[in-house]
Amino acid sequence: MTRYQHLAALLEQRIEQGLYRSGERLPSVRALSSEHGVSISTVQQAYNLLETRRLIMPQPRSGYFVAPRKAAPPIPALTRPVQRPVEITQWESVLELFNSCLDNSAFNFGGGTPDVNQSSVKPLWKLMSRFCQRQDERVLNYGNMYGASELREQVARLALDSGCQLTGDDIVITTGCQEALFVAVRAICESGDIVAVESPTFPGTLQLLRGLGIKVIEIPTCPISGISLDALKLALEQWPIKAVLLVPTCNNPLGFCMPDKYKQSLVMLAQQFDLAIIEDDAYGELVYDYPRPRTVKSFDDDGRVLLCSSFSKTIAPGLRVGWVAPGRYLERVLHMKYISTGYTVTHTQLAVAEFIAQGHYQPHLRRMRMQYKANLDVFTCHVREYFPCGICVSRPQGGFLMWIELPEHFDSLRLNREVKKAGIQIAAGSLFSAAGKYRNCIRLNYALPFTQETAQGLRLVGEAVAKMFNEHGADDCCVESPVGPGQNQVS
Amino acid sequence: MTRYQHLAALLEQRIEQGLYRSGERLPSVRALSSEHGVSISTVQQAYNLLETRRLIMPQPRSGYFVAPRKAAPPIPALTRPVQRPVEITQWESVLELFNSCLDNSAFNFGGGTPDVNQSSVKPLWKLMSRFCQRQDERVLNYGNMYGASELREQVARLALDSGCQLTGDDIVITTGCQEALFVAVRAICESGDIVAVESPTFPGTLQLLRGLGIKVIEIPTCPISGISLDALKLALEQWPIKAVLLVPTCNNPLGFCMPDKYKQSLVMLAQQFDLAIIEDDAYGELVYDYPRPRTVKSFDDDGRVLLCSSFSKTIAPGLRVGWVAPGRYLERVLHMKYISTGYTVTHTQLAVAEFIAQGHYQPHLRRMRMQYKANLDVFTCHVREYFPCGICVSRPQGGFLMWIELPEHFDSLRLNREVKKAGIQIAAGSLFSAAGKYRNCIRLNYALPFTQETAQGLRLVGEAVAKMFNEHGADDCCVESPVGPGQNQVS
Repeated sequence: MTRYQHLAALLEQRIEQGLYRSGERLPSVRALSSEHGVSISTVQQAYNLLETRRLIMPQPRSGYFVAPRKAAPPIPALTRPVQRPVEITQWESVLELFNSCLDNSAFNFGGGTPDVNQSSVKPLWKLMSRFCQRQDERVLNYGNMYGASELREQVARLALDSGCQLTGDDIVITTGCQEALFVAVRAICESGDIVAVESPTFPGTLQLLRGLGIKVIEIPTCPISGISLDALKLALEQWPIKAVLLVPTCNNPLGFCMPDKYKQSLVMLAQQFDLAIIEDDAYGELVYDYPRPRTVKSFDDDGRVLLCSSFSKTIAPGLRVGWVAPGRYLERVLHMKYISTGYTVTHTQLAVAEFIAQGHYQPHLRRMRMQYKANLDVFTCHVREYFPCGICVSRPQGGFLMWIELPEHFDSLRLNREVKKAGIQIAAGSLFSAAGKYRNCIRLNYALPFTQETAQGLRLVGEAVAKMFNEHGADDCCVESPVGPGQNQVS
Repeated sequence: MTRYQHLAALLEQRIEQGLYRSGERLPSVRALSSEHGVSISTVQQAYNLLETRRLIMPQPRSGYFVAPRKAAPPIPALTRPVQRPVEITQWESVLELFNSCLDNSAFNFGGGTPDVNQSSVKPLWKLMSRFCQRQDERVLNYGNMYGASELREQVARLALDSGCQLTGDDIVITTGCQEALFVAVRAICESGDIVAVESPTFPGTLQLLRGLGIKVIEIPTCPISGISLDALKLALEQWPIKAVLLVPTCNNPLGFCMPDKYKQSLVMLAQQFDLAIIEDDAYGELVYDYPRPRTVKSFDDDGRVLLCSSFSKTIAPGLRVGWVAPGRYLERVLHMKYISTGYTVTHTQLAVAEFIAQGHYQPHLRRMRMQYKANLDVFTCHVREYFPCGICVSRPQGGFLMWIELPEHFDSLRLNREVKKAGIQIAAGSLFSAAGKYRNCIRLNYALPFTQETAQGLRLVGEAVAKMFNEHGADDCCVESPVGPGQNQVS
């Protein structure tokens, strides 16, 4: 941490502790300089940083003041989706999102892309380049349908961190986590089957199930502790559910980590109802507080959990390197992998295996976790500043995705159209529900380093929201409320 | 063509024309040298080449003699598969083939891998390396779900050669041709549907259909002109067939090219029965006689043909770059692509696009076509030499795959086990039929340059076949017969 960052952290702490109060004038640059024995420019840099984070405000010719603070918005409440199997819709909205992403001018808060530009990823470039310079023949040939053995061994080693005892032979490499989920579902389900999911759920999963003719039952999900096991049990008693598919660690889009004991209970429930569990752990390594939580798979003693993951969120999505540890479904998963894409691209598999083997992966992960956590703080400050009151905001425990719940009748699809005019992309909440619920919610991506442009983009979104609020007279809900479960039920 | 190749071609022509007869002594090296005004070593090289191709034999201290010739084995007859929809089996055999391919010591005649080691592919290494050295951010990011626009434009340009008027917007890039076929089938068919295929058919296709719960009806197929349109029409009149899936150009495994007029008639038949056509053109660019034949897609005027292809056979399979031009099914194909793998790896897409744009692709194709055609000649000579009589051999018009039909009760799965002991891999014919027919057939790959090792491997396969023949007293069928459709029906 540099001097100015250190000073900024100290000042922030004083503001948080109430030593400098909202609206109060802060010490002059000169005073701080002599108090802390640092240069004028160091103090100025510290103040600039705090200003970027909207904790303080400059007043021309008067110095800096503590910014007036709004209360932290509450966390969304337990979700309440429809409690019966439904057909999945929303493909058109997904397609619209993708097509508008094709416009490179868009400032993209909507996608699930990580930051791939940090220096800790640079060794990967070298490794990829080296395989080409050496003209490693494996890069051009089919390789092994299970995936490169070097990579499978590294994946098995990494899985130890989440409490899984795996070997390379337990793992099939896939074209990203999407293919891992696809072959996992195909290994278990047929058209007409019912699968239980968290609510809200990642659109890639919903569309996958839709494409396979599978119905989903969305289970109420707590934005802090994950899927409601009581609600799941009720659903299992009522419907012939084949599998439960979930993102229990650093959930997309809610950001929660399901507590270990709940994960264990989930496995017991699955055993009781003879259910398969498909666990999407794509964001699991990006948890802010290390060591990382255990996977559901780590509690599995009879091979019923299919653990799916990838390096798309942790290193880079363009590599298309994912994997599945399918337990007892290994052969069937292999069949499904063979028929869907045959083989996975070899070059990036070998490069990732070497990136891990050479010890670059863990430092890279540490860096990205720190960055995303820091981004979350800044991002939350700006959301608090720019968005009107009456919203609920998730408290992600990892990853780089934020879920914002707006009042019940808010139309995020319309918001999407509004902000798109300014070249901004958001993800409308309705994509995250089989039946198009959560239209009053949005998901924002905060992976990239926070810049003036980010602030500008967020301000525009916030203003568009406020404008739509005003039209409906919904801006009178700006009350200071303690942090806690929100009162706005997702209906 | 170098001098010695020119001389060898001339001598071969004379042998073919009967100017030098079987067993006759050829002119001395010295005599040929002065006759053609070339050096002694040029003549020696020409003789060496002809010896490798088993057209001539050296006799110590007596010079070279025209090798005794067996008749060219006949071409297999029109296939006669079961004429009703069947469930697909054979996955276990496919899995066995893959698992034994994992043993790198195996001499692999069984796979569908092209030769990726020729110098004409070297610019691709440089391009791949350059994208990494420049740290082109596109390599790490998700990119475009349709595929890189640079590549789609190049694919559209290439498609002109096969008579297709396409633009980049008509094309979706996929993870190899396997994903192209997968999303094409998924766009049209559901579990329980019936699809018509050529017989024999590429195992990847059969297992794909099996994995999707689709039944196939195998249509009698001529090893010279392709699927029987009469038989297809009869099947269409009798069964509710949803689509026909075929490899009409440089067919895998039979090597035929369906004549243009048949392709046109096929489209008309599809229109009459409102049928979709899935055309696998993975080997189409590897036809020996250029310009290449038209695709079925080029006759399509109402968007019912889904043209699937890849650069796996023409450049390298490890790149995993394929594509589909899905006609009227574009949006549905895109949905299926999104759910199965999301995105295609960007790096190899960009490298292939640049490889084509810089003009490396056509010279590379020319080289590979020449190599495969030359390999076919040598390979056929050796098969003729080492295999017992009573076999039928395909006459591939492109690609690098040969189909050998052995007498009716021959067991190629047993042959597979026998030769595997010697580290040799072949593809048993039963993999190529939904119901496990063609157990008396094998498919051999002749992509790699012919070496002593290849000859040794082929000799071992031939000897194993002969040994199995002898056990069944089937080796008395060595009669000189004219080249033409074989008498051994595939039952």
